[in-house]
Amino acid sequence: MKVYFNGSLMDRDAARIDPGDRGLTLADGLYETIAVVGGDPVRLDAHLARLRVGADVIGLRLPDGDLVAALKEVAAANNINEGALRLTLTRGPAPRGILPPEKPQPTLLITGTSQDLTPPEGVRAIIATCTRRNEHSPLSRIKTTNCLDGILAAQEAAQQKADDALLLSTAGNLAEAAVANLFLVLDGRTVTPPIEDGALPGVMRAAVIEALGAVEQTLAPDALENASEAFLTSALGIRPLIEVDGVAIGSGVPGPVVREAQKA
Amino acid sequence: MKVYFNGSLMDRDAARIDPGDRGLTLADGLYETIAVVGGDPVRLDAHLARLRVGADVIGLRLPDGDLVAALKEVAAANNINEGALRLTLTRGPAPRGILPPEKPQPTLLITGTSQDLTPPEGVRAIIATCTRRNEHSPLSRIKTTNCLDGILAAQEAAQQKADDALLLSTAGNLAEAAVANLFLVLDGRTVTPPIEDGALPGVMRAAVIEALGAVEQTLAPDALENASEAFLTSALGIRPLIEVDGVAIGSGVPGPVVREAQKA
Repeated sequence: MKVYFNGSLMDRDAARIDPGDRGLTLADGLYETIAVVGGDPVRLDAHLARLRVGADVIGLRLPDGDLVAALKEVAAANNINEGALRLTLTRGPAPRGILPPEKPQPTLLITGTSQDLTPPEGVRAIIATCTRRNEHSPLSRIKTTNCLDGILAAQEAAQQKADDALLLSTAGNLAEAAVANLFLVLDGRTVTPPIEDGALPGVMRAAVIEALGAVEQTLAPDALENASEAFLTSALGIRPLIEVDGVAIGSGVPGPVVREAQKA
Repeated sequence: MKVYFNGSLMDRDAARIDPGDRGLTLADGLYETIAVVGGDPVRLDAHLARLRVGADVIGLRLPDGDLVAALKEVAAANNINEGALRLTLTRGPAPRGILPPEKPQPTLLITGTSQDLTPPEGVRAIIATCTRRNEHSPLSRIKTTNCLDGILAAQEAAQQKADDALLLSTAGNLAEAAVANLFLVLDGRTVTPPIEDGALPGVMRAAVIEALGAVEQTLAPDALENASEAFLTSALGIRPLIEVDGVAIGSGVPGPVVREAQKA
Protein backbone atom coordinates (compact mmCIF):
# COMPACT_ATOMS: atom_id res chain seq x y z
CA MET A 1 0.00 0.00 0.00
CA LYS A 2 1.13 3.52 -0.79
CA VAL A 3 0.57 6.36 1.66
CA TYR A 4 1.17 10.09 1.62
CA PHE A 5 3.31 11.07 4.58
CA ASN A 6 4.57 14.57 5.32
CA GLY A 7 4.81 15.68 1.72
CA SER A 8 5.64 12.51 -0.18
CA LEU A 9 4.00 9.39 -1.49
CA MET A 10 5.77 6.32 -0.11
CA ASP A 11 5.38 2.68 0.78
CA ARG A 12 3.28 2.22 3.89
CA ASP A 13 6.15 0.48 5.66
CA ALA A 14 8.41 3.48 5.09
CA ALA A 15 6.01 5.77 6.95
CA ARG A 16 6.78 5.31 10.60
CA ILE A 17 5.34 7.62 13.25
CA ASP A 18 7.65 9.19 15.81
CA PRO A 19 6.99 7.78 19.31
CA GLY A 20 6.69 11.37 20.60
CA ASP A 21 4.01 12.35 18.08
CA ARG A 22 1.31 14.23 19.97
CA GLY A 23 -1.27 12.43 17.85
CA LEU A 24 -0.22 9.24 19.60
CA THR A 25 0.55 10.53 23.07
CA LEU A 26 -2.27 13.08 23.55
CA ALA A 27 -4.75 12.59 20.66
CA ASP A 28 -3.78 16.06 19.51
CA GLY A 29 -5.12 15.55 15.99
CA LEU A 30 -7.89 15.67 13.43
CA TYR A 31 -9.02 13.33 10.71
CA GLU A 32 -11.29 12.98 7.71
CA THR A 33 -12.70 9.85 6.11
CA ILE A 34 -13.41 10.42 2.43
CA ALA A 35 -15.30 8.14 0.07
CA VAL A 36 -13.78 7.21 -3.28
CA VAL A 37 -16.31 6.52 -6.02
CA GLY A 38 -15.32 5.69 -9.57
CA GLY A 39 -11.69 6.39 -8.65
CA ASP A 40 -12.40 9.92 -7.42
CA PRO A 41 -12.47 11.21 -3.84
CA VAL A 42 -15.91 12.80 -3.34
CA ARG A 43 -17.07 15.93 -1.49
CA LEU A 44 -13.44 17.00 -1.11
CA ASP A 45 -14.26 20.68 -0.67
CA ALA A 46 -16.60 19.94 2.24
CA HIS A 47 -14.10 17.60 3.90
CA LEU A 48 -11.23 20.06 3.59
CA ALA A 49 -13.42 22.93 4.80
CA ARG A 50 -14.27 20.95 7.93
CA LEU A 51 -10.60 20.08 8.42
CA ARG A 52 -9.74 23.78 8.30
CA VAL A 53 -12.43 24.59 10.88
CA GLY A 54 -11.06 21.87 13.14
CA ALA A 55 -7.52 23.15 12.72
CA ASP A 56 -8.69 26.65 13.68
CA VAL A 57 -10.46 25.35 16.79
CA ILE A 58 -7.41 23.50 18.09
CA GLY A 59 -4.96 26.16 16.90
CA LEU A 60 -3.12 23.99 14.38
CA ARG A 61 -1.71 25.29 11.13
CA LEU A 62 -2.48 23.14 8.10
CA PRO A 63 0.72 22.04 6.38
CA ASP A 64 1.59 23.64 3.07
CA GLY A 65 0.91 21.63 -0.06
CA ASP A 66 -1.97 20.65 -2.24
CA LEU A 67 -4.15 18.36 -0.15
CA VAL A 68 -6.56 17.72 -3.00
CA ALA A 69 -3.71 16.50 -5.19
CA ALA A 70 -2.32 14.39 -2.33
CA LEU A 71 -5.68 12.70 -1.73
CA LYS A 72 -6.13 11.94 -5.42
CA GLU A 73 -2.57 10.65 -5.59
CA VAL A 74 -3.22 8.12 -2.79
CA ALA A 75 -6.44 6.93 -4.45
CA ALA A 76 -4.65 6.48 -7.78
CA ALA A 77 -1.48 4.91 -6.38
CA ASN A 78 -3.56 2.22 -4.67
CA ASN A 79 -5.88 1.70 -7.65
CA ILE A 80 -8.90 2.49 -5.52
CA ASN A 81 -12.04 2.54 -7.63
CA GLU A 82 -14.44 2.31 -4.70
CA GLY A 83 -13.23 2.73 -1.14
CA ALA A 84 -12.12 5.15 1.51
CA LEU A 85 -9.29 7.57 2.11
CA ARG A 86 -8.28 8.55 5.59
CA LEU A 87 -6.46 11.84 6.23
CA THR A 88 -4.92 12.20 9.67
CA LEU A 89 -3.36 15.47 10.79
CA THR A 90 -1.62 15.71 14.15
CA ARG A 91 0.39 18.36 15.96
CA GLY A 92 3.46 16.19 15.35
CA PRO A 93 6.39 15.17 17.55
CA ALA A 94 7.05 17.22 20.69
CA PRO A 95 8.66 16.97 24.12
CA ARG A 96 6.56 15.96 27.15
CA GLY A 97 3.80 18.32 28.31
CA ILE A 98 0.16 19.15 27.60
CA LEU A 99 0.83 22.55 26.00
CA PRO A 100 1.78 22.34 22.30
CA PRO A 101 5.26 23.50 21.30
CA GLU A 102 5.56 27.03 19.96
CA LYS A 103 6.41 25.86 16.45
CA PRO A 104 4.79 22.47 15.89
CA GLN A 105 5.84 20.30 12.96
CA PRO A 106 2.48 18.72 12.07
CA THR A 107 2.24 15.14 10.87
CA LEU A 108 0.09 14.58 7.80
CA LEU A 109 -0.78 11.03 6.82
CA ILE A 110 -3.14 9.87 4.08
CA THR A 111 -3.98 6.20 3.71
CA GLY A 112 -6.49 4.51 1.44
CA THR A 113 -8.23 1.17 1.03
CA SER A 114 -10.54 -0.38 -1.51
CA GLN A 115 -13.90 -1.18 0.06
CA ASP A 116 -17.40 -2.06 -1.11
CA LEU A 117 -19.53 0.97 -0.24
CA THR A 118 -22.87 -0.74 -0.98
CA PRO A 119 -24.98 0.06 2.09
CA PRO A 120 -26.38 -2.81 4.18
CA GLU A 121 -30.12 -3.52 3.83
CA GLY A 122 -30.80 -2.41 7.37
CA VAL A 123 -28.90 -1.94 10.63
CA ARG A 124 -29.94 -2.60 14.20
CA ALA A 125 -28.65 -0.29 16.93
CA ILE A 126 -28.72 0.12 20.66
CA ILE A 127 -28.68 3.31 22.69
CA ALA A 128 -25.30 3.26 24.40
CA THR A 129 -25.55 3.24 28.18
CA CYS A 130 -21.79 3.20 28.83
CA THR A 131 -21.07 6.79 27.86
CA ARG A 132 -22.50 10.05 26.57
CA ARG A 133 -21.39 12.60 24.03
CA ASN A 134 -20.14 15.91 25.45
CA GLU A 135 -22.07 18.67 23.71
CA HIS A 136 -20.32 21.17 26.01
CA SER A 137 -16.98 20.56 24.29
CA PRO A 138 -16.03 22.12 20.95
CA LEU A 139 -14.59 18.70 20.11
CA SER A 140 -18.15 17.48 19.48
CA ARG A 141 -18.29 19.93 16.57
CA ILE A 142 -15.01 19.03 14.84
CA LYS A 143 -13.65 15.69 13.73
CA THR A 144 -10.82 14.86 16.11
CA THR A 145 -8.96 11.63 16.77
CA ASN A 146 -10.40 11.56 20.33
CA CYS A 147 -12.64 8.60 19.47
CA LEU A 148 -12.60 6.45 22.58
CA ASP A 149 -16.17 7.28 23.64
CA GLY A 150 -17.30 6.12 20.21
CA ILE A 151 -15.20 2.96 20.53
CA LEU A 152 -16.80 2.14 23.91
CA ALA A 153 -20.27 2.64 22.39
CA ALA A 154 -19.40 0.45 19.39
CA GLN A 155 -18.09 -2.26 21.73
CA GLU A 156 -21.31 -2.14 23.75
CA ALA A 157 -23.28 -2.57 20.51
CA ALA A 158 -21.13 -5.50 19.42
CA GLN A 159 -21.57 -7.20 22.79
CA GLN A 160 -25.32 -6.99 22.26
CA LYS A 161 -25.04 -8.29 18.67
CA ALA A 162 -26.15 -4.90 17.34
CA ASP A 163 -24.58 -3.17 14.35
CA ASP A 164 -24.18 0.30 15.80
CA ALA A 165 -24.81 2.45 18.85
CA LEU A 166 -26.64 5.74 19.30
CA LEU A 167 -25.10 8.16 21.77
CA LEU A 168 -27.07 10.53 23.94
CA SER A 169 -25.82 13.99 24.85
CA THR A 170 -25.04 14.69 28.50
CA ALA A 171 -28.50 16.31 28.62
CA GLY A 172 -30.04 13.00 27.51
CA ASN A 173 -31.04 13.86 23.94
CA LEU A 174 -30.13 11.87 20.84
CA ALA A 175 -26.81 13.13 19.47
CA GLU A 176 -25.53 10.74 16.79
CA ALA A 177 -24.28 7.20 16.24
CA ALA A 178 -20.76 5.97 17.07
CA VAL A 179 -19.33 7.36 13.81
CA ALA A 180 -22.42 8.49 11.89
CA ASN A 181 -25.19 11.06 12.05
CA LEU A 182 -28.81 10.17 12.79
CA PHE A 183 -31.93 11.16 10.85
CA LEU A 184 -35.54 10.39 11.74
CA VAL A 185 -38.74 10.84 9.77
CA LEU A 186 -41.37 12.24 12.14
CA ASP A 187 -44.86 13.13 10.90
CA GLY A 188 -43.51 13.25 7.37
CA ARG A 189 -40.66 15.65 8.26
CA THR A 190 -37.05 14.56 8.07
CA VAL A 191 -35.21 15.71 11.21
CA THR A 192 -31.73 15.37 12.68
CA PRO A 193 -30.21 16.35 16.05
CA PRO A 194 -28.69 19.86 16.05
CA ILE A 195 -24.97 20.50 16.43
CA GLU A 196 -25.72 22.01 19.85
CA ASP A 197 -26.92 18.57 21.01
CA GLY A 198 -23.58 16.95 20.18
CA ALA A 199 -24.05 16.00 16.51
CA LEU A 200 -20.85 16.20 14.49
CA PRO A 201 -21.39 18.44 11.44
CA GLY A 202 -21.08 15.51 9.07
CA VAL A 203 -20.32 16.09 5.41
CA MET A 204 -23.01 13.60 4.36
CA ARG A 205 -25.34 15.06 7.00
CA ALA A 206 -25.08 18.47 5.32
CA ALA A 207 -25.67 16.92 1.90
CA VAL A 208 -28.78 15.09 3.14
CA ILE A 209 -30.14 18.19 4.90
CA GLU A 210 -29.85 20.05 1.61
CA ALA A 211 -31.17 17.26 -0.63
CA LEU A 212 -34.21 16.40 1.52
CA GLY A 213 -34.89 19.75 3.15
CA ALA A 214 -34.31 18.12 6.53
CA VAL A 215 -34.36 20.28 9.65
CA GLU A 216 -32.45 20.24 12.94
CA GLN A 217 -34.54 19.38 15.96
CA THR A 218 -33.73 18.35 19.53
CA LEU A 219 -34.83 14.73 19.83
CA ALA A 220 -35.48 12.88 23.07
CA PRO A 221 -34.89 9.11 22.84
CA ASP A 222 -38.65 8.45 22.77
CA ALA A 223 -38.82 10.21 19.39
CA LEU A 224 -37.62 6.86 18.00
CA GLU A 225 -40.99 5.32 18.91
CA ASN A 226 -42.80 7.83 16.74
CA ALA A 227 -40.46 7.70 13.76
CA SER A 228 -41.74 6.14 10.54
CA GLU A 229 -38.14 5.79 9.30
CA ALA A 230 -34.60 6.33 10.54
CA PHE A 231 -31.19 6.27 8.92
CA LEU A 232 -27.52 6.83 9.65
CA THR A 233 -25.26 8.92 7.42
CA SER A 234 -21.50 9.01 7.16
CA ALA A 235 -19.05 10.03 4.48
CA LEU A 236 -19.09 6.42 3.29
CA GLY A 237 -22.84 6.15 2.81
CA ILE A 238 -26.37 6.07 4.14
CA ARG A 239 -27.61 3.06 6.12
CA PRO A 240 -31.29 2.41 6.95
CA LEU A 241 -31.77 2.08 10.73
CA ILE A 242 -34.57 -0.44 11.21
CA GLU A 243 -34.41 -1.27 14.92
CA VAL A 244 -33.21 0.34 18.18
CA ASP A 245 -32.93 -1.58 21.44
CA GLY A 246 -34.94 -4.42 19.92
CA VAL A 247 -37.87 -2.21 18.86
CA ALA A 248 -38.62 -1.78 15.17
CA ILE A 249 -38.51 1.71 13.66
CA GLY A 250 -41.80 2.21 11.79
CA SER A 251 -42.57 -1.01 9.96
CA GLY A 252 -39.02 -2.31 10.50
CA VAL A 253 -37.96 -2.12 6.86
CA PRO A 254 -36.20 0.65 4.89
CA GLY A 255 -38.72 3.28 3.77
CA PRO A 256 -39.07 5.73 0.90
CA VAL A 257 -37.20 8.63 2.53
CA VAL A 258 -33.99 6.69 3.11
CA ARG A 259 -34.19 5.39 -0.46
CA GLU A 260 -34.54 8.95 -1.70
CA ALA A 261 -31.57 10.02 0.44
CA GLN A 262 -29.45 7.17 -0.89
CA LYS A 263 -30.26 8.15 -4.48
CA ALA A 264 -29.49 11.83 -3.87
CA MET B 1 17.42 8.22 24.60
CA LYS B 2 16.49 4.62 25.29
CA VAL B 3 12.87 3.52 25.23
CA TYR B 4 11.03 0.30 25.98
CA PHE B 5 8.95 -0.72 22.99
CA ASN B 6 6.88 -3.89 22.71
CA GLY B 7 9.09 -6.00 24.90
CA SER B 8 12.58 -4.61 24.33
CA LEU B 9 14.75 -1.71 25.35
CA MET B 10 15.99 0.11 22.25
CA ASP B 11 17.18 3.44 20.91
CA ARG B 12 14.34 5.92 20.62
CA ASP B 13 14.92 6.24 16.88
CA ALA B 14 14.47 2.49 16.41
CA ALA B 15 10.95 2.64 17.91
CA ARG B 16 8.67 3.74 15.11
CA ILE B 17 4.91 3.57 15.44
CA ASP B 18 2.85 1.88 12.73
CA PRO B 19 0.74 4.43 10.81
CA GLY B 20 -2.31 2.23 11.45
CA ASP B 21 -1.83 2.16 15.23
CA ARG B 22 -5.23 2.81 16.81
CA GLY B 23 -3.48 4.92 19.41
CA LEU B 24 -2.69 7.37 16.61
CA THR B 25 -5.81 7.04 14.48
CA LEU B 26 -8.51 6.77 17.16
CA ALA B 27 -6.88 7.60 20.51
CA ASP B 28 -7.58 4.02 21.52
CA GLY B 29 -5.08 4.06 24.36
CA LEU B 30 -4.12 4.70 27.96
CA TYR B 31 -1.12 6.26 29.63
CA GLU B 32 0.58 6.84 32.95
CA THR B 33 3.07 9.53 33.94
CA ILE B 34 5.30 8.33 36.73
CA ALA B 35 7.74 10.40 38.78
CA VAL B 36 11.32 9.22 39.23
CA VAL B 37 12.94 10.29 42.50
CA GLY B 38 16.45 9.26 43.47
CA GLY B 39 16.57 7.03 40.42
CA ASP B 40 13.46 5.07 41.37
CA PRO B 41 9.99 5.24 39.81
CA VAL B 42 7.56 6.08 42.63
CA ARG B 43 4.02 4.87 43.46
CA LEU B 44 4.37 2.15 40.82
CA ASP B 45 1.73 -0.10 42.37
CA ALA B 46 -0.87 2.67 42.26
CA HIS B 47 0.00 3.61 38.68
CA LEU B 48 -0.17 0.04 37.43
CA ALA B 49 -3.41 -0.60 39.33
CA ARG B 50 -4.98 2.39 37.58
CA LEU B 51 -3.64 1.20 34.24
CA ARG B 52 -5.30 -2.18 34.81
CA VAL B 53 -8.62 -0.50 35.67
CA GLY B 54 -8.39 1.55 32.48
CA ALA B 55 -7.58 -1.53 30.43
CA ASP B 56 -10.63 -3.28 31.89
CA VAL B 57 -12.89 -0.33 31.07
CA ILE B 58 -11.83 -0.17 27.43
CA GLY B 59 -11.56 -3.95 27.07
CA LEU B 60 -7.83 -4.08 26.40
CA ARG B 61 -5.60 -6.89 27.55
CA LEU B 62 -2.35 -5.75 29.18
CA PRO B 63 0.66 -7.21 27.37
CA ASP B 64 2.58 -9.94 29.10
CA GLY B 65 5.85 -9.03 30.74
CA ASP B 66 7.09 -7.37 33.87
CA LEU B 67 6.03 -3.71 33.61
CA VAL B 68 7.74 -2.79 36.87
CA ALA B 69 11.05 -4.10 35.55
CA ALA B 70 10.52 -2.35 32.22
CA LEU B 71 9.84 1.00 33.90
CA LYS B 72 12.92 0.68 36.10
CA GLU B 73 14.95 -0.34 33.08
CA VAL B 74 14.00 2.84 31.19
CA ALA B 75 14.84 5.01 34.21
CA ALA B 76 18.23 3.32 34.58
CA ALA B 77 19.10 3.23 30.88
CA ASN B 78 18.58 6.99 30.65
CA ASN B 79 20.35 7.75 33.94
CA ILE B 80 17.27 9.47 35.29
CA ASN B 81 17.82 10.51 38.88
CA GLU B 82 14.89 12.93 38.99
CA GLY B 83 12.35 13.05 36.20
CA ALA B 84 9.36 11.40 34.61
CA LEU B 85 8.52 8.15 32.88
CA ARG B 86 5.66 7.93 30.45
CA LEU B 87 3.98 4.58 29.75
CA THR B 88 1.67 4.53 26.73
CA LEU B 89 -0.47 1.50 25.95
CA THR B 90 -2.57 1.42 22.79
CA ARG B 91 -4.74 -1.17 21.06
CA GLY B 92 -2.04 -1.36 18.39
CA PRO B 93 -2.18 -1.50 14.59
CA ALA B 94 -5.48 -2.45 12.97
CA PRO B 95 -7.40 -2.07 9.73
CA ARG B 96 -9.88 0.82 9.29
CA GLY B 97 -12.99 0.88 11.48
CA ILE B 98 -14.13 2.02 14.91
CA LEU B 99 -14.56 -1.47 16.37
CA PRO B 100 -11.31 -3.01 17.68
CA PRO B 101 -10.02 -6.14 15.95
CA GLU B 102 -10.82 -9.45 17.58
CA LYS B 103 -7.22 -10.11 18.54
CA PRO B 104 -5.48 -6.77 19.04
CA GLN B 105 -1.69 -6.59 19.20
CA PRO B 106 -1.28 -3.81 21.78
CA THR B 107 1.54 -1.30 21.52
CA LEU B 108 3.47 -0.63 24.71
CA LEU B 109 5.89 2.27 24.82
CA ILE B 110 7.81 3.60 27.80
CA THR B 111 9.85 6.78 27.50
CA GLY B 112 11.66 8.76 30.17
CA THR B 113 13.23 12.17 30.66
CA SER B 114 15.24 13.85 33.38
CA GLN B 115 13.36 16.81 34.79
CA ASP B 116 13.56 19.06 37.82
CA LEU B 117 10.51 18.17 39.91
CA THR B 118 10.87 21.10 42.33
CA PRO B 119 7.37 22.62 42.46
CA PRO B 120 6.89 26.27 41.46
CA GLU B 121 6.30 28.76 44.28
CA GLY B 122 2.75 29.39 43.15
CA VAL B 123 0.63 29.00 40.01
CA ARG B 124 -2.09 31.22 38.57
CA ALA B 125 -5.00 29.55 36.80
CA ILE B 126 -8.09 30.45 34.88
CA ILE B 127 -11.39 28.61 34.72
CA ALA B 128 -11.53 27.32 31.14
CA THR B 129 -14.49 28.67 29.20
CA CYS B 130 -13.69 26.82 25.95
CA THR B 131 -14.68 23.34 27.09
CA ARG B 132 -15.98 21.19 29.91
CA ARG B 133 -15.08 17.82 31.31
CA ASN B 134 -17.55 15.02 30.60
CA GLU B 135 -18.38 13.40 33.93
CA HIS B 136 -20.95 11.24 32.08
CA SER B 137 -18.17 9.32 30.31
CA PRO B 138 -16.16 6.54 31.96
CA LEU B 139 -13.15 8.13 30.26
CA SER B 140 -13.20 10.84 32.95
CA ARG B 141 -12.37 8.11 35.47
CA ILE B 142 -9.45 6.45 33.65
CA LYS B 143 -6.29 7.93 32.19
CA THR B 144 -6.70 7.77 28.42
CA THR B 145 -4.80 9.46 25.63
CA ASN B 146 -7.97 11.41 24.70
CA CYS B 147 -6.44 14.66 25.96
CA LEU B 148 -7.61 17.29 23.49
CA ASP B 149 -10.09 18.95 25.89
CA GLY B 150 -7.21 19.39 28.32
CA ILE B 151 -5.01 20.77 25.54
CA LEU B 152 -7.67 23.34 24.61
CA ALA B 153 -7.96 24.38 28.26
CA ALA B 154 -4.16 24.66 28.60
CA GLN B 155 -4.02 26.77 25.42
CA GLU B 156 -6.71 29.09 26.77
CA ALA B 157 -4.68 29.48 29.97
CA ALA B 158 -1.50 30.23 28.03
CA GLN B 159 -3.30 32.83 25.91
CA GLN B 160 -4.27 34.57 29.15
CA LYS B 161 -0.72 34.29 30.54
CA ALA B 162 -1.94 31.88 33.21
CA ASP B 163 -0.07 28.74 34.27
CA ASP B 164 -2.95 26.28 34.21
CA ALA B 165 -6.69 25.93 33.65
CA LEU B 166 -9.45 24.53 35.83
CA LEU B 167 -12.16 22.59 34.02
CA LEU B 168 -15.78 22.52 35.05
CA SER B 169 -17.96 19.45 34.67
CA THR B 170 -20.86 19.63 32.23
CA ALA B 171 -23.02 20.32 35.32
CA GLY B 172 -20.87 23.36 36.08
CA ASN B 173 -18.96 22.16 39.12
CA LEU B 174 -15.18 22.22 39.56
CA ALA B 175 -13.72 18.96 38.19
CA GLU B 176 -9.92 19.27 37.98
CA ALA B 177 -7.13 21.14 36.22
CA ALA B 178 -5.90 20.42 32.68
CA VAL B 179 -3.70 17.53 33.86
CA ALA B 180 -3.89 17.75 37.65
CA ASN B 181 -6.36 17.35 40.50
CA LEU B 182 -7.64 20.27 42.54
CA PHE B 183 -7.76 20.61 46.32
CA LEU B 184 -9.23 23.48 48.34
CA VAL B 185 -9.06 24.28 52.04
CA LEU B 186 -12.54 25.41 53.16
CA ASP B 187 -13.25 26.26 56.81
CA GLY B 188 -10.17 24.30 57.80
CA ARG B 189 -11.21 21.15 55.89
CA THR B 190 -9.23 19.94 52.88
CA VAL B 191 -11.65 19.02 50.08
CA THR B 192 -11.41 17.82 46.47
CA PRO B 193 -14.01 17.28 43.73
CA PRO B 194 -15.45 13.73 43.67
CA ILE B 195 -14.82 11.30 40.83
CA GLU B 196 -18.52 11.63 39.94
CA ASP B 197 -17.92 15.29 39.13
CA GLY B 198 -15.26 14.46 36.55
CA ALA B 199 -12.12 14.29 38.66
CA LEU B 200 -9.60 11.75 37.43
CA PRO B 201 -8.67 9.35 40.27
CA GLY B 202 -5.14 10.70 40.44
CA VAL B 203 -2.41 8.70 42.11
CA MET B 204 -1.14 11.78 43.97
CA ARG B 205 -4.75 12.76 44.71
CA ALA B 206 -5.26 9.45 46.53
CA ALA B 207 -1.99 9.90 48.43
CA VAL B 208 -2.97 13.41 49.54
CA ILE B 209 -6.48 12.32 50.56
CA GLU B 210 -4.90 9.70 52.77
CA ALA B 211 -2.11 11.86 54.16
CA LEU B 212 -4.29 14.88 55.00
CA GLY B 213 -7.61 13.17 55.66
CA ALA B 214 -9.12 15.19 52.80
CA VAL B 215 -12.71 14.53 51.74
CA GLU B 216 -14.54 14.54 48.40
CA GLN B 217 -17.07 17.31 48.03
CA THR B 218 -18.95 18.77 45.07
CA LEU B 219 -17.57 22.27 44.60
CA ALA B 220 -19.24 25.07 42.69
CA PRO B 221 -16.80 27.58 41.20
CA ASP B 222 -17.64 30.15 43.89
CA ALA B 223 -16.09 27.81 46.45
CA LEU B 224 -12.79 29.31 45.27
CA GLU B 225 -13.75 32.64 46.85
CA ASN B 226 -14.09 31.04 50.26
CA ALA B 227 -10.95 28.90 50.10
CA SER B 228 -8.08 29.81 52.42
CA GLU B 229 -5.73 27.71 50.26
CA ALA B 230 -5.78 25.73 47.03
CA PHE B 231 -3.35 23.39 45.33
CA LEU B 232 -2.97 21.15 42.29
CA THR B 233 -1.68 17.60 42.48
CA SER B 234 -0.25 15.36 39.78
CA ALA B 235 2.05 12.38 39.75
CA LEU B 236 4.94 14.82 39.31
CA GLY B 237 4.18 16.95 42.36
CA ILE B 238 2.03 19.40 44.27
CA ARG B 239 1.76 23.01 43.16
CA PRO B 240 0.26 25.80 45.29
CA LEU B 241 -2.62 27.50 43.42
CA ILE B 242 -2.53 31.15 44.46
CA GLU B 243 -4.86 32.86 42.00
CA VAL B 244 -7.84 31.98 39.76
CA ASP B 245 -9.18 34.35 37.10
CA GLY B 246 -7.15 37.18 38.60
CA VAL B 247 -8.53 36.75 42.12
CA ALA B 248 -6.20 35.67 44.91
CA ILE B 249 -6.93 32.44 46.79
CA GLY B 250 -6.89 33.28 50.50
CA SER B 251 -3.97 35.62 51.11
CA GLY B 252 -2.46 34.83 47.69
CA VAL B 253 0.56 32.95 48.99
CA PRO B 254 1.15 29.23 49.64
CA GLY B 255 -0.30 28.26 53.03
CA PRO B 256 0.40 25.63 55.71
CA VAL B 257 -1.80 22.88 54.27
CA VAL B 258 -0.09 22.78 50.86
CA ARG B 259 3.30 22.79 52.64
CA GLU B 260 2.15 19.83 54.72
CA ALA B 261 0.94 18.03 51.57
CA GLN B 262 4.25 18.66 49.82
CA LYS B 263 6.17 17.23 52.79
CA ALA B 264 3.93 14.17 53.01
